[in-house]
Amino acid sequence: MPKPKGFEKPIGVRDYLPYAAGKLRAIERSVLDCMASWGYRQIMTPTMEYYDTVGVASSTSDQKLFKLLNNRGTTMVLRSDMTSPIARVVSSLLKEEPLPLRLSYHANVFRSIEEEAGKEAEFFQTGVELVGDDSPEADAEVVALAVASLQAAGVVSFKIAIGHVGFLNGLIEEAIPEQGDREALKEGLLHRDYVGFRETLAGLSIPSEKKEELEGILRLRGGKEVCGQALELSHSPLAQHSVQHLSKVWDALEDHGVAQHVMIDLTMIGDFSYYTGMTFEGYAADLGFPVCSGGRYDNLLQQFGRPAPATGFALKTNRILDGVDGIEFSPQLPVLLQYDAAHRKEALAEARKLRADGRSVMMRHVDQSEEVLTKAETRVGPLGPSYGETISFVSKS
Amino acid sequence: MPKPKGFEKPIGVRDYLPYAAGKLRAIERSVLDCMASWGYRQIMTPTMEYYDTVGVASSTSDQKLFKLLNNRGTTMVLRSDMTSPIARVVSSLLKEEPLPLRLSYHANVFRSIEEEAGKEAEFFQTGVELVGDDSPEADAEVVALAVASLQAAGVVSFKIAIGHVGFLNGLIEEAIPEQGDREALKEGLLHRDYVGFRETLAGLSIPSEKKEELEGILRLRGGKEVCGQALELSHSPLAQHSVQHLSKVWDALEDHGVAQHVMIDLTMIGDFSYYTGMTFEGYAADLGFPVCSGGRYDNLLQQFGRPAPATGFALKTNRILDGVDGIEFSPQLPVLLQYDAAHRKEALAEARKLRADGRSVMMRHVDQSEEVLTKAETRVGPLGPSYGETISFVSKS
Repeated sequence: MPKPKGFEKPIGVRDYLPYAAGKLRAIERSVLDCMASWGYRQIMTPTMEYYDTVGVASSTSDQKLFKLLNNRGTTMVLRSDMTSPIARVVSSLLKEEPLPLRLSYHANVFRSIEEEAGKEAEFFQTGVELVGDDSPEADAEVVALAVASLQAAGVVSFKIAIGHVGFLNGLIEEAIPEQGDREALKEGLLHRDYVGFRETLAGLSIPSEKKEELEGILRLRGGKEVCGQALELSHSPLAQHSVQHLSKVWDALEDHGVAQHVMIDLTMIGDFSYYTGMTFEGYAADLGFPVCSGGRYDNLLQQFGRPAPATGFALKTNRILDGVDGIEFSPQLPVLLQYDAAHRKEALAEARKLRADGRSVMMRHVDQSEEVLTKAETRVGPLGPSYGETISFVSKS
Repeated sequence: MPKPKGFEKPIGVRDYLPYAAGKLRAIERSVLDCMASWGYRQIMTPTMEYYDTVGVASSTSDQKLFKLLNNRGTTMVLRSDMTSPIARVVSSLLKEEPLPLRLSYHANVFRSIEEEAGKEAEFFQTGVELVGDDSPEADAEVVALAVASLQAAGVVSFKIAIGHVGFLNGLIEEAIPEQGDREALKEGLLHRDYVGFRETLAGLSIPSEKKEELEGILRLRGGKEVCGQALELSHSPLAQHSVQHLSKVWDALEDHGVAQHVMIDLTMIGDFSYYTGMTFEGYAADLGFPVCSGGRYDNLLQQFGRPAPATGFALKTNRILDGVDGIEFSPQLPVLLQYDAAHRKEALAEARKLRADGRSVMMRHVDQSEEVLTKAETRVGPLGPSYGETISFVSKS
């Protein structure tokens, strides 16, 4: 194994130079402020968690967890999301607090990756959890807050697709007796491989009218009318109940004034072992991947000893940082305040005065041999200019 | 090894509930804004670095580094400070950028600990690096900025002690021929074990006037007059040069208007293998440990292939969070806006209006069987109250 060179950093992680760091911080601040204005309060949890608690409970597959050992030989993980750590806190430090609880976060999370994939091993998520409310109102609130959060992050044009794992589960369980066949169909939907879905369907030994029904799933995308079509497609009680719930969520989203940002997509399938109800994903115009995702996970909290329904979402903050220009972000360039030895005291007093007035001031000591700069810096490069104007306290020689 | 229970988190790490998270964020924001007003620009680096690059170059001892393996079997570390990662960036992404460079950061860092010690394994540092300037002006700038940063963090009463590794090195090398004896004396100073220092000194086979000189170190604490006393104490060129440099730093600190917050302490000894010039530590009144530390490290950058002098400091942000109450921080409590099914649309429209006016609004759907709340919440507990007033859009039954 060759040693890495001094300038190298691990694969899949990144440095944020001042412009990117400033933009990321601006997004973070704007989104957290938005979440606070909906009554969500920020919490922070450790980067490391025990594998046997948060690691096992997380929705991240085992081989994607970064693992390390502590001094006692206990396995720890770098957190792969914030949902499980927050479930731990809700069930421990906050176990006496009445529900519902509204919590927000902005945090870096970690995924061990195949280095060929070019994927990120560390990235930021900004999100909320609403614990202790299983109503359609709660589902609608997190979707409406996702809309507001994307807008706060500067994403102007986007669509949030909502679905329901109960509908697909009910429909497929009713129509298909074999577990293997069910999984194969879900796989096709999960990867949005509609050709594969149709081929799997064609090969099943089930009545052809059932096949037509199942193929009908692929048309279940649109506005509220989709709920009506879905109710026709399956009479499974689970599917019916799920669609009725989704219909109520839609009504609430109309009252929230955000229905124009939302579509129903009953072909959408999240992590079935984790989500238990409505799920959703947000897509920004011109970007080929989701910028947020979320949904209901009513089974997680009981793993930490405090059974409670819960729903939430996370913005994929790095994708917004890299893919969207919307956030207002124009860092103020400092004044370059130059001085020679004879004028140092005077110059530093002026700097204090300017800073007290809200200005940013960078100092430069000028020797007799050095030139006094008189123009704003215009350098091009990874940092860009470091000052926008100059002042000097230097005797003319 | 018993499995950790669901509610447990690893030893030495912590959860920040909303009040602590909000206060930490307020400190972070205020200090970074202060640093920006001095022309320091924020950068962010990955949590994980290669052991053979940043891990080896860091000033943290090897057994305190958290290590983990990536997919290829290469050893990585969780960063133990931000100075070495920033040196890596200055030598790679920023290698074409002209010096001096002024960079700031707020980051969590990691130290593997003896679990008995009750020390933190993950904590925050907020700091700056000034790369490419070896003048007394540069040393004074970072000390003056440390003063401003502590004030921005809400620390009202504090003292910054400045010393110089060159003075002690010169003095001790001149007076003591044996390397082992030198190390023993430095150990005493490092741990502020003045009794041990005197005993070691008494046992040395060096002339008694040398012993008196060396014992004189312990009196070298105070204002600028200490520089004069120090010049008398040693004629080693290194010691003389170091004290003259410190004297110039003091003059610059007077021009910065911060000398009242600073004292000279020539008994102070930092990490000798790392620091190369002036070092300093900040002490808050009533706290028994430093709240910031820093100094000059002119040999680090060359390990990354871009030799350059550098100086900087970091606030120990967690200690300030826990130990100091100064920062202005009074989170606004949301309005609880209650509605029944018949008034949902109206209530949600009101919520949007209030949020647009800068208010924070938390929604509550009220069933016929539920009580409409009419008083501000006063609950006591880890979260405190979650709303400060109530509004209702509910039909009287």
